[in-house]
Amino acid sequence: MEVKMDAAALSAFLDDAFGQVAADFVVDHVAPMAVRVRMPVAERHLRPGGTVSGPSMFALADVAVYLAVLAMVGPKALAVTTSLSMDFMRKPEAGRDLIAECKLLKLGKVLAVGDVLIFSDGVEAPVARASMTYSIPRG
Amino acid sequence: MEVKMDAAALSAFLDDAFGQVAADFVVDHVAPMAVRVRMPVAERHLRPGGTVSGPSMFALADVAVYLAVLAMVGPKALAVTTSLSMDFMRKPEAGRDLIAECKLLKLGKVLAVGDVLIFSDGVEAPVARASMTYSIPRG
Amino acid sequence: MEVKMDAAALSAFLDDAFGQVAADFVVDHVAPMAVRVRMPVAERHLRPGGTVSGPSMFALADVAVYLAVLAMVGPKALAVTTSLSMDFMRKPEAGRDLIAECKLLKLGKVLAVGDVLIFSDGVEAPVARASMTYSIPRG
Amino acid sequence: MEVKMDAAALSAFLDDAFGQVAADFVVDHVAPMAVRVRMPVAERHLRPGGTVSGPSMFALADVAVYLAVLAMVGPKALAVTTSLSMDFMRKPEAGRDLIAECKLLKLGKVLAVGDVLIFSDGVEAPVARASMTYSIPRG
Repeated sequence: MEVKMDAAALSAFLDDAFGQVAADFVVDHVAPMAVRVRMPVAERHLRPGGTVSGPSMFALADVAVYLAVLAMVGPKALAVTTSLSMDFMRKPEAGRDLIAECKLLKLGKVLAVGDVLIFSDGVEAPVARASMTYSIPRG
Repeated sequence: MEVKMDAAALSAFLDDAFGQVAADFVVDHVAPMAVRVRMPVAERHLRPGGTVSGPSMFALADVAVYLAVLAMVGPKALAVTTSLSMDFMRKPEAGRDLIAECKLLKLGKVLAVGDVLIFSDGVEAPVARASMTYSIPRG
Repeated sequence: MEVKMDAAALSAFLDDAFGQVAADFVVDHVAPMAVRVRMPVAERHLRPGGTVSGPSMFALADVAVYLAVLAMVGPKALAVTTSLSMDFMRKPEAGRDLIAECKLLKLGKVLAVGDVLIFSDGVEAPVARASMTYSIPRG
Repeated sequence: MEVKMDAAALSAFLDDAFGQVAADFVVDHVAPMAVRVRMPVAERHLRPGGTVSGPSMFALADVAVYLAVLAMVGPKALAVTTSLSMDFMRKPEAGRDLIAECKLLKLGKVLAVGDVLIFSDGVEAPVARASMTYSIPRG
């Protein structure tokens, strides 16, 4: 399968459709059924103690799967998350960006399933994993 | 089992320990192994189209389980989410607060498990469900 | 909403369509968007030490949601599980049947979501919880 | 980290401790933090229509993570599954073995987290994915 939107197209789409969060995410790399998204960690993502908040990691995983689907199907703004699971395995390291490596395991007519590993930039052991199911609107 | 922190104590704890998000959550009700938490929906929680964002619903479910654990074990700031699953079932209704009804299904020495249903205030069918596991630090 | 298949109809359907496992499950009760299913625990469900195996509990949760959907939509044999999460919270008590209490949280045109609590018969604290999503075939 | 039990040692352990299911699983390969387990599909794993049952796939994923943990920590019989999520993405192909590729993402003192992809032998697109958390008993 071929990629319909590259990193620049996905970034432009984010800016347009989700202006209020677009600054949180940088599309690093796009490949068939896969994207890498970076979250430059800022004060607003942190919890006391300096760790990145759960909702921020959720948002990163969610946007990564969303962009991986868009990359393959083109700019349809309407896919919605229907279910997800996450495991938080290690504390993100302070002062490092978070990197989401997303693979689409399925891209069907009705449902897409993506797997995400989240890393502290430059650290080998993953911080969290997530699986997300997106419902793709008919027609 | 007896409740060790009531709604006022939980609210004070939130203000103290998580000042930057405390304004997002109101502790409506506390009972043994159960809490009800309200999220007064504001502009910052919304996505284009006026629907509440996934990360906001995640944050609500997460804080509800956290507070339900604290209510039973007292003010230990350190329990951390280890895993969770969520299903998003309906769009929240615009202009209504979200209500999280949380029940603790297990409160062990090492792990606590909580179930959450999220509703648009005044609407019967749930918007989302979540299950969260918290790890409770030893000693 | 009205129930289209009662306990007797669901049992007959199980016998017909899933003869090889029908003996594992007894439909105790059917209500709108809810069923209670009993698993008479036998030697084949056990692991060393006398505890019920994970796959047996999975099977019970899965069949409970399946029957809850069938009860509402009638005898369409084709709904399939697309995703699930489970938490195992306590050891089932030896020598007691398992009881699955299932509620449908959503019954859409495309997806159904059911929540299940599994109990050792007569014991208040749940053994496990599960959430299952079924895809409902079009047409 | 070094592997403490190789494929032969894991197989012998399965035979010993879980004799009644050992015939369902073949340990194909063991590496640090990873195992590959094969399920020779037999009549007892099938549902009407010839597809492998959900509980059989659950059992395969569960045993794969269990064996991956054992491979690293040695023959302690007591780790238990505490939570899991699965996505069923495609029908397994009739007449082919199932292959579980398991990676341990975390092996802590209290919890281990493993990711599993299940394939029909020789087919590239995965049939299912699973994430499992095992609790590791203290001492």
